[in-house]
Amino acid sequence: MLLCDIGNTSYHFCNENREYKESVKSFDPSSVKEKVYYICVNKALHVKLHSLSNWIDLSEYIDKKKYYQTMGIDRIFAVEAINEGVIIDAGSAVTVDVVKNNEFVGGFIYPGIQAMRKTYENISPALAYSFNFECDLDIMPKNSQDAISYGYLKTLYSEVMSHNLPVILTGGDALEFKKIFRDAKVDEKLIFNSMKKIILQNEDRLC
Amino acid sequence: MLLCDIGNTSYHFCNENREYKESVKSFDPSSVKEKVYYICVNKALHVKLHSLSNWIDLSEYIDKKKYYQTMGIDRIFAVEAINEGVIIDAGSAVTVDVVKNNEFVGGFIYPGIQAMRKTYENISPALAYSFNFECDLDIMPKNSQDAISYGYLKTLYSEVMSHNLPVILTGGDALEFKKIFRDAKVDEKLIFNSMKKIILQNEDRLC
Repeated sequence: MLLCDIGNTSYHFCNENREYKESVKSFDPSSVKEKVYYICVNKALHVKLHSLSNWIDLSEYIDKKKYYQTMGIDRIFAVEAINEGVIIDAGSAVTVDVVKNNEFVGGFIYPGIQAMRKTYENISPALAYSFNFECDLDIMPKNSQDAISYGYLKTLYSEVMSHNLPVILTGGDALEFKKIFRDAKVDEKLIFNSMKKIILQNEDRLC
Repeated sequence: MLLCDIGNTSYHFCNENREYKESVKSFDPSSVKEKVYYICVNKALHVKLHSLSNWIDLSEYIDKKKYYQTMGIDRIFAVEAINEGVIIDAGSAVTVDVVKNNEFVGGFIYPGIQAMRKTYENISPALAYSFNFECDLDIMPKNSQDAISYGYLKTLYSEVMSHNLPVILTGGDALEFKKIFRDAKVDEKLIFNSMKKIILQNEDRLC
């Protein structure tokens, strides 16, 4: 079974054996001849993909009323994957979504590592540091690098932990954030597993 | 008594009657003939100002051992102003400093409103919203504007409130943040008042 999670820059494929990425700019989806189950946040690709009969849009198998209109389909699939917890999907943005008793409670969006590093650098060259993920967040900082690291990380940490729910980390920077959210479960395949779950639930219509 | 708080873009003057600003680019400090007590975060101006005998650098009257080497002198003066509390100085950066029993505990740096708005916009045009300072931070968001507003504001709020100390707001965006930190005291003259306090404490050397 071939799965594909399409973002703004790449097609992220997953089959039984491996994961691989193709660039949105150069990859031609009609070159794939087998059946592909996909989700796609990239609006520019919707028409093209809908014209290909072997590309199956899994977003059509979700009860969208549980979510809000502009919520990214990747966030929706992450939420569909769990019964209870806070999902942190750490990529170019960090999305944080709360699920309680199988219901989506709501979520927020925080800048990703690279975006936030640039933000500090643009405010002042004196703040052009990389973040220190080893920084002790129990101690108020007394140097510039820790002052921005704490500003970026402890604020997020305090808010996430206030929900008193298990934390699940996914996305490209999951392992960096694991250094801060030490008790969190890292699940890099959360969205692909959710796609498989939706396929199984709709087996009679899909297969 | 003429006071001046010099930043990266402007000279911010305060005398008995009024406050006014002059541009760092165009203003000539030697045009002031009376005595000026100042602090200055703008390194490019240090040599020029030190050559003018009527410009008195108040940073020399602070016990710097209590702070860290790269800490901005404006933050140090804000801290010197209070005995206990969390100071939020909301400008192009938001600096947050904690004081307990007259001692500087530490502090962190968070992006200012404009810097953070640009950050979200650069991540995706779908996140190009202004922040909703009326957003109810007790409810997890279910729309994009509140999702970024909560991401920017609730994270900061959760961290600041965890210190269980009075909150003092200063800086150009103090009144915006007052909508979130409802019990905070707004003190737009915090740094000027701190400068006056240091002058009084060192009256014999300074006057």
